[in-house]
Amino acid sequence: MTSRKRKIGVVAPASRMSTKVAERVQTLAAALYPDRTPQIHFHPQCLASHGHFAGDDATRARAFLEIANDASYDALWYARGGYGSCRVAEAILDRLTERARRKAYLGYSDAGMLFAGLYRAGFTGVAHGPVAEDILRDGGEAAAGRALAWLVDAAPETLEPTVPRGQKTAAFNLTILSHLLGTPLQPDLAGHVLMLEEVGEAMYRIDRSLFHVTSNPQIRQVAGIMLGRCSWIPANEPDFAMTEQEVARYWCERSGIPWLGRADIGHDVDNKIVPFGGYVGAGA
Amino acid sequence: MTSRKRKIGVVAPASRMSTKVAERVQTLAAALYPDRTPQIHFHPQCLASHGHFAGDDATRARAFLEIANDASYDALWYARGGYGSCRVAEAILDRLTERARRKAYLGYSDAGMLFAGLYRAGFTGVAHGPVAEDILRDGGEAAAGRALAWLVDAAPETLEPTVPRGQKTAAFNLTILSHLLGTPLQPDLAGHVLMLEEVGEAMYRIDRSLFHVTSNPQIRQVAGIMLGRCSWIPANEPDFAMTEQEVARYWCERSGIPWLGRADIGHDVDNKIVPFGGYVGAGA
Repeated sequence: MTSRKRKIGVVAPASRMSTKVAERVQTLAAALYPDRTPQIHFHPQCLASHGHFAGDDATRARAFLEIANDASYDALWYARGGYGSCRVAEAILDRLTERARRKAYLGYSDAGMLFAGLYRAGFTGVAHGPVAEDILRDGGEAAAGRALAWLVDAAPETLEPTVPRGQKTAAFNLTILSHLLGTPLQPDLAGHVLMLEEVGEAMYRIDRSLFHVTSNPQIRQVAGIMLGRCSWIPANEPDFAMTEQEVARYWCERSGIPWLGRADIGHDVDNKIVPFGGYVGAGA
Repeated sequence: MTSRKRKIGVVAPASRMSTKVAERVQTLAAALYPDRTPQIHFHPQCLASHGHFAGDDATRARAFLEIANDASYDALWYARGGYGSCRVAEAILDRLTERARRKAYLGYSDAGMLFAGLYRAGFTGVAHGPVAEDILRDGGEAAAGRALAWLVDAAPETLEPTVPRGQKTAAFNLTILSHLLGTPLQPDLAGHVLMLEEVGEAMYRIDRSLFHVTSNPQIRQVAGIMLGRCSWIPANEPDFAMTEQEVARYWCERSGIPWLGRADIGHDVDNKIVPFGGYVGAGA
């Protein structure tokens, strides 16, 4: 635990953040840390709008770089996921400076596109975990509070329960990992426990994405796969006759990847923190 | 044009075929080729059922191999797409014999998973084109008739109009190609005109898949990309503000892949034939 007030920058490299989020997060942070309230700067880009995205590609990349390359920020927090990180990943990764390496990064879902690239580039502070927008979910203060506890104190109680065992870890949305395989964003996950979660995809798509991920020769070097929650699965036509866990086990067995059970991550308020590379202890 | 009666085997490595298809295709074939009606064998597996699939993985792989490895068949025709080819691709590719190489293969959509592997393995008779089930579409006899004209006579009028220019060609459903990148199924498409079509995917997903495909270093060796029809696109929330053609051009420009315009392929009755590797002339 640090006594210095942390400074957190929030940007939206994908979809636009909802207008209520900033005030609710500030209020929560003040209540949780009355004596050392973190300074949370919501970059105006979070509320920009350009078609599907929170501003055009150049605007989103610039906002990310302003926070990431500014040494006064301790952390960069994703405002929300949605879609769009793959469009700005190259522009961001090409212009990050050494200052960007000494910083925490937190987000999940679409953020995985950019986090994969950061981790591949050797960044050690990248973690899967709640975005600011999660505060709007039912019970969302638990998610936002967990994110703050990670960003302020790297608190071990925020971690996915198996992370403290000390293995290298990484976590992705399954569809996002599938869509970065074979690109310059794909990180080396050899020896990692790979946790995968999904939302809003029919079972045949989950099956297809798991074929894809487990058929990749580099992914086959992982220490094992854990399956997070798969939520809002639309009905499969016809019924798929297998659950997501059966499907995940099936592909692990076929590919020779150890099946390590369920992970406590997902598109919900219980979504836990998974540091890319594993947990190296609190404090900064 | 050959005077010998062709023998065509129909199998369903993915989803189950509808019961009406066999009779309607046989009737059409008899009407189109009264003097040399092709012998079309619908493998019983086409009507098998196992959850999402036309029989379990072993049943589907076995049916494919029975036709592919039988020298008496001139062609293997996909009954329909759907989903499931990725599950049987490895089992099939491992057991194909030399007899399987001297044969035509026709299908599209989910078939791309297996066709990618066949083409990578050096098969020269693989082509994108209508499946038997397409006869059930409105005006579907045109699609089934085109498939027969290809399988019986390799008729040049069935070809996608740019194919006769003589370049190497390949055609895929965009989502299917995305899901085989970075796996042992990915073929070498260097120097090929790559045609991509899509069905039932929101614009943000089309955009994401095009990011994926155009970011792959091997795909960047193609001679260019042509975009087929993108049909049944669900509404994007919020509006994506770009058409599928604008998105395809964008990713071509970003990746340095030549944009070659529209291709006459898609999930519809106008879907034309695209031989993997290009057109080498009629006759067999």
